[in-house]
Amino acid sequence: MNVVSTVDPRDGRQRDTDLTETDESRLEAIADQAYRATQWLSDLGRLGRAGMLDAIAASLESHRAALIAAAEAETGLTHARLDQELTRAALQFRLFGDVLRDGAYVEAAIDHAAETPLGPGPDLRRMLVPLGPVAVFGASNFPFAFSVAGGDTAAALAAGCPTVLKAHPSHPLTSHASAEAIASAIRELGGPDGVTGTVYGEQAGRLLVRHPAMRAVALTGSVGAARAIQAAIDERPDPIPLYAELSSVNPIVVLPGASADRGDQIAEGLYASFTGSGGQLCTKPGLAFVPSDPGGAHLVDALRDRVAASGGAVVLNERIRDAYENGARAFERAGAHVSARPTVDPGAGFTVAPTLLEVDLPGLTAEIADECFGPLLVVVRYDDVADLDAVLATVAPSLTGSIHHGPGDDAAVVRRMVDVLAARSGRIVFDGYPTGVRVSWAQHHGGLWPSTNSVHTSVGATSIRRFLRPLAWQNAPEWILPEELRDGYTAIARRVDGRLEPAAT
Amino acid sequence: MNVVSTVDPRDGRQRDTDLTETDESRLEAIADQAYRATQWLSDLGRLGRAGMLDAIAASLESHRAALIAAAEAETGLTHARLDQELTRAALQFRLFGDVLRDGAYVEAAIDHAAETPLGPGPDLRRMLVPLGPVAVFGASNFPFAFSVAGGDTAAALAAGCPTVLKAHPSHPLTSHASAEAIASAIRELGGPDGVTGTVYGEQAGRLLVRHPAMRAVALTGSVGAARAIQAAIDERPDPIPLYAELSSVNPIVVLPGASADRGDQIAEGLYASFTGSGGQLCTKPGLAFVPSDPGGAHLVDALRDRVAASGGAVVLNERIRDAYENGARAFERAGAHVSARPTVDPGAGFTVAPTLLEVDLPGLTAEIADECFGPLLVVVRYDDVADLDAVLATVAPSLTGSIHHGPGDDAAVVRRMVDVLAARSGRIVFDGYPTGVRVSWAQHHGGLWPSTNSVHTSVGATSIRRFLRPLAWQNAPEWILPEELRDGYTAIARRVDGRLEPAAT
Repeated sequence: MNVVSTVDPRDGRQRDTDLTETDESRLEAIADQAYRATQWLSDLGRLGRAGMLDAIAASLESHRAALIAAAEAETGLTHARLDQELTRAALQFRLFGDVLRDGAYVEAAIDHAAETPLGPGPDLRRMLVPLGPVAVFGASNFPFAFSVAGGDTAAALAAGCPTVLKAHPSHPLTSHASAEAIASAIRELGGPDGVTGTVYGEQAGRLLVRHPAMRAVALTGSVGAARAIQAAIDERPDPIPLYAELSSVNPIVVLPGASADRGDQIAEGLYASFTGSGGQLCTKPGLAFVPSDPGGAHLVDALRDRVAASGGAVVLNERIRDAYENGARAFERAGAHVSARPTVDPGAGFTVAPTLLEVDLPGLTAEIADECFGPLLVVVRYDDVADLDAVLATVAPSLTGSIHHGPGDDAAVVRRMVDVLAARSGRIVFDGYPTGVRVSWAQHHGGLWPSTNSVHTSVGATSIRRFLRPLAWQNAPEWILPEELRDGYTAIARRVDGRLEPAAT
Repeated sequence: MNVVSTVDPRDGRQRDTDLTETDESRLEAIADQAYRATQWLSDLGRLGRAGMLDAIAASLESHRAALIAAAEAETGLTHARLDQELTRAALQFRLFGDVLRDGAYVEAAIDHAAETPLGPGPDLRRMLVPLGPVAVFGASNFPFAFSVAGGDTAAALAAGCPTVLKAHPSHPLTSHASAEAIASAIRELGGPDGVTGTVYGEQAGRLLVRHPAMRAVALTGSVGAARAIQAAIDERPDPIPLYAELSSVNPIVVLPGASADRGDQIAEGLYASFTGSGGQLCTKPGLAFVPSDPGGAHLVDALRDRVAASGGAVVLNERIRDAYENGARAFERAGAHVSARPTVDPGAGFTVAPTLLEVDLPGLTAEIADECFGPLLVVVRYDDVADLDAVLATVAPSLTGSIHHGPGDDAAVVRRMVDVLAARSGRIVFDGYPTGVRVSWAQHHGGLWPSTNSVHTSVGATSIRRFLRPLAWQNAPEWILPEELRDGYTAIARRVDGRLEPAAT
């Protein structure tokens, strides 16, 4: 059995853990346990599962110090950032508790028997039910909020789906500790072992995706990882959905009115957004379109000063460091010039220099308009705002598109730019920065390929829909129906005979 | 240019039409028109699109006689059936009109700026917006309701997505006439040409799926067709969703209490359900589990008598006839014996004999538990209801699962059986038959692979969700927001700060 090792990115030191890669027979056992746990989650019911999610949140918080210590040593992310992230992870479980208590997420609908233009219509009742066990591939860059204790796990468990999580090789010990914190909460509720499972190793990931018990796959990762998982899905006799959140360039458009009005402030915001967490966020802005006028020049000067004065950033692992450095070099070869890059001591770990590149609008190629994971921003200088539409329409779709406008900007220009961004993004940010994804009901964290391959969000209340399927009951006797579909049940909002009826308060 | 021909399945006669297969340059033009029509559909707004759908329904009805005549000559379906189907097609457009007027389908949600455990949360507003042009592949067996004027077209247009429909080769003239009826309604509203388009020929279908303007594909057809379309999607740089409704066996379980209670009635219902429309329905029951006891024997006798006394059924085309006859032969070779099959005059067209096969439960193989499109039913005789669970768990997932129970049946058995069916079906029918899919709010017409490849319905109000994606606005100025997301808009139900607020009445 292969021992799983872990690396501290701050000093590059590798050491063995007590964990071993999951072999085929162990994987079979875990997947079977997940399959069998489906019934327990279903029997818990909506409110029981809400309680379970709250208990998981509390358990994560009660293990806060140990979890953060594990993650610091495996990711190089700061204590403050990891502390926030753990809060975020707990918040996600609690939000889904609220979603379950609200209950509208099941989309309960009742059509009573009625005469229709096609003759007598039967009694029909429909609601969303769990898909079944979900395979989750954790992300490298969020050891809590997009990993074992992440939003995919929270959403799947909320839906009533057991999860089997493929741990990211960059933080096995954090994954293991998170899994234990979750499992202990479930055990205290009398839950079986299979409600959540964790597997380690590439091969286990492939076998997991192909396992007949799995009903969906969720991934936060690279386009390459998504293609590999899709290839494994294609080997199944039955295709299952892949919900993948992948790469994103997140263009920011600064209109002349905005840079004239508050160039310093935007420089500060941009700097914080592209360098925070070592630029290792899927919502990191990769391209900023800034006017060539004096206001724009002042903004870029201010940004350049900040970058030049910054220190090195520890990134998550060797692969990310190398990809970052190769990416930056490729951008430079393609014509972007270095505007600011401090000299940093690379040390023994994976430290990189934040980099500000510049290019004039006509020099922006598809190669430069690509994601470079890490603290790199390309400023694109433009002379005429009228040239932006066509260029933005060629930048690959992103999770987000941001626009800064000011008193001097024409409303028609703003609207045109928003339309162009909206056609290629999942979220339009006004006068702000794409990083910092609020965990809430109205959030949408998704976009067109390659930012995601789905029409769903991976963050926020509605991400639960990914793990549900509709089921209809026709002329069912009352006693066999789920309580949400019985006449007179008023605890949740339902659509009855075409009319939306709110929950009784 | 290849001329499109049409065949009358009643006499097998083939004749040329005035239509030609769509070549690449024409396809490009149609796809470009569709892309450009997106803005017009968007500008129409929800209520404008509702009016458009009503106008299309009225136009279809005003062309009723000509449409039915065209379809009779191309499908061999009866006038009465086609008349009903046209009513159904019009009803679908009107239902989506109601969905748009109701407006809750956009899932509008507003989270006002607020303090959160992670600091200040921005103002976030989310709703569903159109995906963009949709490629629709019409079905052979519903020349109206699942073809050019079908539910996929209605749902996509409702969503705000232009459609390009690949006409089924079995009814090109019906497709053309339907397209004209729809287009004339849109023209009267001042709509551009690209709101709906129709293409003819296999090659056009492939090119359509690969066209960059297409944002989703909807298909009602065979597993083979779905795999071919998926292969074309895989050639795209950007994957797009395929919503496919494919094959379905639709098992029916008759419990001993039901056959003892009302065997004759069930025989009548089963007969009508598997022979109606020549058995060419995706919800046709293919397997009926009937007890070996005297009540079951009486039911099967009554069913056998009806089938033996029946006449031939004209099926849609030569391919379906051949597949039906080959399928029946394969079932017989696999051990099912002919219980009843009348001698019919095959004539010059595509006439087949309805067929009742029988097999004992232990003899039921995967080969027999497969779909055979056409008027064929396999009765599976069982001794002990306790043996059914395990067998049902091996039958491929279906659109529907039906259960007949009577006063003598144990409630625990009924529940167990429903649980088994629910795990592998999209709709559970109690004491009825799966054919006759009500067009309404609570309908679900979908299931696990191979009945569909999605977690969505292809019939009913919620099928619109397939053609929508979420979009979020962060800290947007009021004037740039869609009206559905502005403060104080009360015409639709919305989720505001986590609370569902019903529409003002």
